[in-house]
This record gives sequence, structure tokens and C-alpha cells, in this order.
Amino acid sequence: MQNYVHDIPTRLYFGKGVVAAHLTGALSAYGKRVLLAYGGGSIKRTGLYDEITALLREGGFSWCELTGIEPNPRIESVAEGVRLCKENAVDVILAVGGGSVIDCCKAVAAGVYWEGDLWQMVLTIPRGSRTLPLVDILTIAATGSEFDGGGVITNLATNEKLPAFFTYPAVSLCDPELTYSVPAYQTAAGSADIMSHIFEGYFSRTDDCDLSDGIAESILRSVMANCPIALKDPANYTARANLMTAATVACSGIPEYGKVRTGWPCHQMEHDLSAWYDITHGAGLAILTPRWMRHLLKKDPSMTGRFVKFATRVMGLTGTDDTALAYAAIDALEAYFASTGLPQTLGELGITDEHFAEMAAHVNAVKHLDRADLPLSDEEIVQIFRACL
Amino acid sequence: MQNYVHDIPTRLYFGKGVVAAHLTGALSAYGKRVLLAYGGGSIKRTGLYDEITALLREGGFSWCELTGIEPNPRIESVAEGVRLCKENAVDVILAVGGGSVIDCCKAVAAGVYWEGDLWQMVLTIPRGSRTLPLVDILTIAATGSEFDGGGVITNLATNEKLPAFFTYPAVSLCDPELTYSVPAYQTAAGSADIMSHIFEGYFSRTDDCDLSDGIAESILRSVMANCPIALKDPANYTARANLMTAATVACSGIPEYGKVRTGWPCHQMEHDLSAWYDITHGAGLAILTPRWMRHLLKKDPSMTGRFVKFATRVMGLTGTDDTALAYAAIDALEAYFASTGLPQTLGELGITDEHFAEMAAHVNAVKHLDRADLPLSDEEIVQIFRACL
Repeated sequence: MQNYVHDIPTRLYFGKGVVAAHLTGALSAYGKRVLLAYGGGSIKRTGLYDEITALLREGGFSWCELTGIEPNPRIESVAEGVRLCKENAVDVILAVGGGSVIDCCKAVAAGVYWEGDLWQMVLTIPRGSRTLPLVDILTIAATGSEFDGGGVITNLATNEKLPAFFTYPAVSLCDPELTYSVPAYQTAAGSADIMSHIFEGYFSRTDDCDLSDGIAESILRSVMANCPIALKDPANYTARANLMTAATVACSGIPEYGKVRTGWPCHQMEHDLSAWYDITHGAGLAILTPRWMRHLLKKDPSMTGRFVKFATRVMGLTGTDDTALAYAAIDALEAYFASTGLPQTLGELGITDEHFAEMAAHVNAVKHLDRADLPLSDEEIVQIFRACL
Repeated sequence: MQNYVHDIPTRLYFGKGVVAAHLTGALSAYGKRVLLAYGGGSIKRTGLYDEITALLREGGFSWCELTGIEPNPRIESVAEGVRLCKENAVDVILAVGGGSVIDCCKAVAAGVYWEGDLWQMVLTIPRGSRTLPLVDILTIAATGSEFDGGGVITNLATNEKLPAFFTYPAVSLCDPELTYSVPAYQTAAGSADIMSHIFEGYFSRTDDCDLSDGIAESILRSVMANCPIALKDPANYTARANLMTAATVACSGIPEYGKVRTGWPCHQMEHDLSAWYDITHGAGLAILTPRWMRHLLKKDPSMTGRFVKFATRVMGLTGTDDTALAYAAIDALEAYFASTGLPQTLGELGITDEHFAEMAAHVNAVKHLDRADLPLSDEEIVQIFRACL
């Protein structure tokens, strides 16, 4: 077991009615001038916007709005948020949405105090940099941005989508009922993202972290049990609540405590796909993951035991031939993703092999999968991309 | 799933060498005058005391010492700690030990700002009361006090041992190597305490919290796998590390997120046993738990499904008769506790039925198990005590 640090200062309120119960109290701790940030406007259709602004008015807050934050949030939106915060002397940022909105707001929170170019901030910001306080209201179970300090920002000018550590939210308000309106495709993609956060750490050379493994396996089983229920019955509270809990913990780092860090290969590869093609993050991950797994298993048979663990503990498979069991688990995972309505190939998303070499080179230039504990060369990354076509 | 709040501000450093790496940095954030608190002196035998005081000297700290904190820490020790803090204008408390020392120091941290009688503080302190900052160095995997805000203080004058919420540690330093010297009996008792923290929440009417259940089951399996290894091979790092991780999370509240609160019946009953007989907490719990489980199962057959889950997921049992499976799991648990060398009856600890009625009445007067979701009347508590003789 490797050393680790647990340091998650976020106060998280989970359950029905937490927005009405805790929003104004959470914001008041920091001041009365708020940046209210959200995405494409679904919160106006669902009535959440009206609920929030009524609470803000009643609480005596003033606010300005950052709207239209993209599914892969762009550096231009960060810049606009920073401008609004500075012009309005904002005390606290309120992000309402999913990972994209929260990620963007984390970058805004840091950008307010950043001297110089904001894309340089994404590339170089040191941990512990000063930020504005951030409160969020979560509306989709997916990225776990509500319980981690990272954000992923896209620069379409340079075809880059890169993660950075900005800040933990001070307070996260997580009401599963707010996810009833999430469409089936986004529910499935979000669920695939949750599972990918687990896979990224689960498939490592570390095999002696019982609790981390137990948490990882519990999350995978729970997502595979509850996502299909939420797809059929979008207002099933138990299913939505379990998905939201799983999402929150999956990306927190907790399922990797004690493990050798892997470099999160599928995420790094997907980020380059999204940077070029602006695809849905979770869909890209669902396509990449089984191909990466087969590549890993074929290249390094010493990982078979880990896949057998996954097969028996998560996928409920049994068998006497470990290699067959390992491949069967990957096939079953692929079939599960298909059953939730996610695309199965990059071809379906209009992606060709045109930029694969560039993407692979960029992944390794920036994120160094070639130096990871389970390394992937540029060529191997291209092979995995090609297997997804 | 019930609403919950996650709000654990403790920064926890886990692994080899964390004391040397992080102690002085952690203390410096709060000041240079330290109360160094510990128990019976085992830290002097192991060399930990010398390591810590060398670090304090090198870091330019001054310190006074609170020593001899009891296994069931007494209100008199709290008073002495408060006196030392006030006389020496202490900035930060450094607790070195297990749950007893850390619990005592939490009460000291609050007592410094408490006006009036300190036992009244234990009985009435409101959450959020002002406290001194607390840093701890953990030396046994057991109570989880390093990652929760509670402390249990004993008043032998009134035969009371009561929990209260005082404060979370600011920083916890958890090095599994520091537990190599924990004797077998304390290792087993600590492990029983960890498991009891899980049982207390696991056996409730809530059955829809996948992650909480998964964490609970992982911890139980891990403790039952690693405690026997640590008993045979006390310097086995992996075993000690898994036990320490399990202990830290087991009492944090996390395995109960989303569940109906149960009132922690075995802990409340054991606290009264300890208040009268000053027994080892984990040993008392290991005796009480199987008897409480049988009582619960006999009284309320609707709990059978929960016990079947425990039987199959934790104890690795299979069978077609649910009731038989449920009782078999309890028998297996009892046999496991016996295999770790813990006493099997209260009689072995010199306890008779003389005070059972008083204890039961006190449990319900103070902790109201009679009003819990799975209630226990005074008479039922006496029955459970008697079954332990």
C-alpha cells in the first residue's frame, strides 16, 4: 500500500430539498455578490433557475450571470467568467449544472487571481493557488467535480483539452431529484464516466488495498444496477441517488488511496478526442475503455488476475480459465455499455483516423502515458484508437 | 436513501514516515506552544516519544505534557489537560496514541473554552463549539477517533461513560508501522471495535444504499482477513495498513451515509459495562455483538434478509434456508472473535448480573435505545447482558 493524503475540505449536502435548505446559508458565509453560472439553459426549463433566483432575492444577494457554458467548457467561457467576477466584485461563485459548469467555475475562481494568460494558468497553475470560494448545485451524476479539486478546460484553438487542479468546492448541494430531467443519453454517458473513473485506478499493479478495491467494486456494481433503472424510470429516487453518490466518490481519489497512480489513460486519450471532435466525454470513454482493456491484457498477461477479480466481483462471472474469464468480463462490459444506448465505435461519431497520430503524440507530450506504470507508447495509443473505429 | 451531510475537515496523512514528514508543518500552522498528550508510556518504550520531542525541539516548539491518559479516559484527565493548556497558553494539542488519548484531547480542546463544569460539557456541549486545534499521531487501529469529531469520556464517580461531539482533528498522522508494537490482545480488541462500528449501522432497516453497504462489507472482510495476519506477524505492513485504513473509515459516518440512524446499540451498552467495570472497549463489543444480533433476529424476522446479505457477502456462506444462514453467520462471527483470542463471556471479565438493571436503565435514560428504529427496552438490554454471562 502506497502513502496517501486525504484532504477534501468540501462540505457536501446530499438529498431531497438541500438547495432550499442550505443554499443561502452556504453563500452567506462568503458574501452577498454572486456569480451565477450555468450551461445551455436546461435549468430554466426545469424551474431550477426560478427556485435559485427566488432564494437569492429573498436572501438579499445580488448576482450577475455566466451562461452558455459548453459541455466541454472552453477557455473563452473561463475568461468571460473572470471578467464578470472582476467587474462585479463577486464574493462567491455559484455553479449550477454538471461537471462542465463546475469545472469552468473552478477555473474562473482561480482565474480571478491569476496574473496573465488564462490558458497558461490551465497549463501551469500550482496547487494551493488563491481562488474565490465556489458553491455548486449538481444536476447530473457524472464527473464528480462536486467532490474534487480538478477541472478540465478545452482550447479549440490549439485542439487541447487539459485537466488542472484549481480548487475544491466549498459547498456542494447534491439533490438526486434534480437529475430526474437528465436525458437518457446523458444519463448513460454520465454513468460511463463514473465507471471510467473507477477503471482508471482499478486496473493497476497494486493489489493490496482492500478498502479502495471494495469501494471501486461497489461503485461499479451500483452503477450497472442503477443506470438501467434510471433509463427506464427517470424519476426513480433510489436509482438516481445511488448514481449520484457513486459519481461523487468515484472521482474523489478515494478509490485510489494506497495505489500506484496510473496516469488515467482512457481519460487522457478521450480528452484528445474531445479536443478535436467535441464529443460527449462519457461516450468517448465507453468506446475507448474495452479496447484499452483488451490491449492491456494482451500486452501484459500479469494483469490477468486483476481482470479475474473484476470478472468475479463486479461482473458476476465464474470460470476456471482465467484468461477466458478476463476477456469475457471485457466483452460483458462492452455489452453493458451497448445496452445503455451508448455508441460503440468512434466511426458512429464521425471520427476517422486522420488525426490519431497527432492526438497520440499530444497525449504523451502533455500527459506522459509513455512513462506511466503501465506505459502506452504513441504507437500503442494509435492502435487503441484504431480498434475503436 | 436518507439525506446526509459529508463534512470531515480533517487532513489525513497515511503511510510510512508521515510523522517525520508532516508533524512540524502541521503544528506550525497553529503556533509554537504545544500540549503533548499520551497514555501509559508505551511511546517511550517504542522510541516514538524521542522521535517526536526531537522534531519539536528542532522545530522550535515549546511543550508541556499530559501523561497517563487512561484506556477509558476520565474526566479528571480532561480537567488536567485543560489546566495545562490554560497555564501554558497552548496553541495546539498533539495527541499521541489511540482513541483514548485522542478522545481525551478532543475534550481538552473544547474544555479550554468551556465555562463551568467539564462533566456538564460532556453532557451538553453544542456542535460547533470553539476548540483548540488538534493534531494526532495514531498508534493503534481501532476507534477511528482520528477521522471523526466524537470522544467518549468516563466519569467513574457517576459510573458513566458517554460520547459527545467535540471537534475533528485538524491533522491526523497515520503510520501503520507505529502499530507494529501493539500487543495481540489490543490488536484483536481494536479490530473488534472497527467491526462493531460497521455492524452498528449495517444492521438497520435501510437496504438501498449500495456504496455505504459496499464500504461496510469491504471493511468487515478486510478486518477479518488482516487481523489474523497481524496477530501472527505483527510487523506485516500490508495487514497493519489495511487495519488502519479500515479503522479510519469505519467510524467516520461514511458507511452510514443514506441510512436511518440506529442509535449504535452495542456501543451504548458497552459504554455502561466499561463505566462500571473499566473493561477493554473492543472486548466488551465482541462479547455483546453476537448476542445482540441473535436477539434482533429472533425478535424481528424481517431483519433476516440483512443477515443473509452479511452471511453471503461478508462471511462467505451459502445456503437455501435464510434463517439458518442468518444464524450461521452470527455463529461464524462469534467463532472468528474467539479465534482472535478475545474473551467470549462477561463472566471471564469478572462481571456478574448485579448491576445489569441499573445499566440498562441508564442506557435508555441517556441514549434512548428504547426509542431507536430497532428499539430495545430496559428488559431487552438486560436479556442481552444476561446472554453474555
